[in-house]
Amino acid sequence: MTTVLFAVPGLWADYQAELPKALAEAGVAAEVVTEAAPETVDYIVYAPSSPLQDFSPYTRAKAVLSLWAGVERIVGNASLTRPLCRMVDPGLTEGMVEWVVGHTLRHHLGMDRHTVNPGHAWDPTCPPLARERPVTVLGMGALGSACAEALRALNFPVTGWSRTAKPGCLHGEDGLRKALAGAEIVVTLLPKTPETENLLNAERLALMPKGAVILNPGRGALIDDDALLAALDAGHIGHATLDVFRVEPLPPDHPYWTHPRVTVTPHIAADTRASSAARVIAENIRRGEAGEPFLHLVDRARGY
Amino acid sequence: MTTVLFAVPGLWADYQAELPKALAEAGVAAEVVTEAAPETVDYIVYAPSSPLQDFSPYTRAKAVLSLWAGVERIVGNASLTRPLCRMVDPGLTEGMVEWVVGHTLRHHLGMDRHTVNPGHAWDPTCPPLARERPVTVLGMGALGSACAEALRALNFPVTGWSRTAKPGCLHGEDGLRKALAGAEIVVTLLPKTPETENLLNAERLALMPKGAVILNPGRGALIDDDALLAALDAGHIGHATLDVFRVEPLPPDHPYWTHPRVTVTPHIAADTRASSAARVIAENIRRGEAGEPFLHLVDRARGY
Repeated sequence: MTTVLFAVPGLWADYQAELPKALAEAGVAAEVVTEAAPETVDYIVYAPSSPLQDFSPYTRAKAVLSLWAGVERIVGNASLTRPLCRMVDPGLTEGMVEWVVGHTLRHHLGMDRHTVNPGHAWDPTCPPLARERPVTVLGMGALGSACAEALRALNFPVTGWSRTAKPGCLHGEDGLRKALAGAEIVVTLLPKTPETENLLNAERLALMPKGAVILNPGRGALIDDDALLAALDAGHIGHATLDVFRVEPLPPDHPYWTHPRVTVTPHIAADTRASSAARVIAENIRRGEAGEPFLHLVDRARGY
Repeated sequence: MTTVLFAVPGLWADYQAELPKALAEAGVAAEVVTEAAPETVDYIVYAPSSPLQDFSPYTRAKAVLSLWAGVERIVGNASLTRPLCRMVDPGLTEGMVEWVVGHTLRHHLGMDRHTVNPGHAWDPTCPPLARERPVTVLGMGALGSACAEALRALNFPVTGWSRTAKPGCLHGEDGLRKALAGAEIVVTLLPKTPETENLLNAERLALMPKGAVILNPGRGALIDDDALLAALDAGHIGHATLDVFRVEPLPPDHPYWTHPRVTVTPHIAADTRASSAARVIAENIRRGEAGEPFLHLVDRARGY
């Protein structure tokens, strides 16, 4: 009998039924517990917000399976020497695609001037077609690629930029300059690493065309907040719709709340759904028990 | 030399260059004019808003080619005995898909509570996934089918309803009741005919689940305005986003302007684009000259 420690107390209500069910469907004989003697635990279901921070007593653990896609808060933990897998949840990808496509279309169509129209202006100026609205996606991993594909299906010309060379994507510093210069809407979907912190700084924001829109459903630290506010004040950046922030919830006195060219969404673009996430966890435990390679294994050197 | 009368004075600036270019590309030797002796005219490029209303002097005309998709204002004109073709413009379809998908995602994601959030509320409640949000499209012609396909690509479960039986669609009165009862978002894309006028009346609005949303980019007359306002006031219908109205521009004192559960967009969902529409017109003139059947020929009995 495999022992699975569920170490995210706040989510137990969501997973209490889903995880045993998913394990049974995967054909794994396992017991899911919320407390156990560390040396008896085979797998740890985890989130970087968990109280568990010292992994050294878990001498038998075959893997730590995170419920979060982002693992930057745990990847540097020296006590964690076991394989660490991050969550790539189909439900999370779907939710992200919906947020990104929805807000891209919101800005593309100029919806806000209709949802808030106190003067009752009737101005039948049509927006351009999506085929005339170039979009750049920074970060072409599982989430970025899915967003790019959905946007292309709606005819948006999409440029993808990736930190490492990938087929059909721009990459490197020259590629980034080109990707920003050609974009009317930029979507930031990179992981947070030392290399991506403040990726959108004053210099790179200045490369974007006047009036360009930024959508950030990735990580708050990808953007230099002061530089963005300055570019918005100058009218160079037309709007920023931000779902993630350096501090969450976004503090009540943060200038993003009151800036007329900023929309704040409360970290809702990508939510892990218990039913589909439990299946991903169960599949990785099945793989571990069968000696097969884990899915979504974190590369500690890259940091994600 | 074929004589093409361009009878839509307000659009001449858009088509003056595009139409001769498209005719040349189609291999038709034609002259496009804005005035001509009626008996010399081979084709009339038309819009129902045109000053030309008496077609009887145009004895040689082989077809009247409308730049509008909706022809209800011209189809009953007894002096028009020539073939009448309506516009099915790929650009128009793309624009419609963008408006419908954009506003569907706006309501699905609950965007308005973020675009207007004076209290700076941080409520990280995630919306359901699109796969959990049933959408019904009323009218499965070229536009409705394209919208249904794009919504399905984003995982929305889409029910199509058509006045006449079509594969994969509900139809008839029983089908309509079922289509409305199962929809959280209803998109109305029917042509205006005597049968579709006030299709969404008090009785049919009552069939929709509480909180359902209506998107009308089709025709204003599809909805009984008083019944909709009553259903919105009662909280039965959650929101209506309307692009078309019985009188346009929507009069300044119309209650839709001030209703908190109504969004008015100024007839921008489907705009005919001169470059692609000119190619459709040119192709029909080529067909007429070659003795081939016209595209998008209006069936006078059905009214569209």
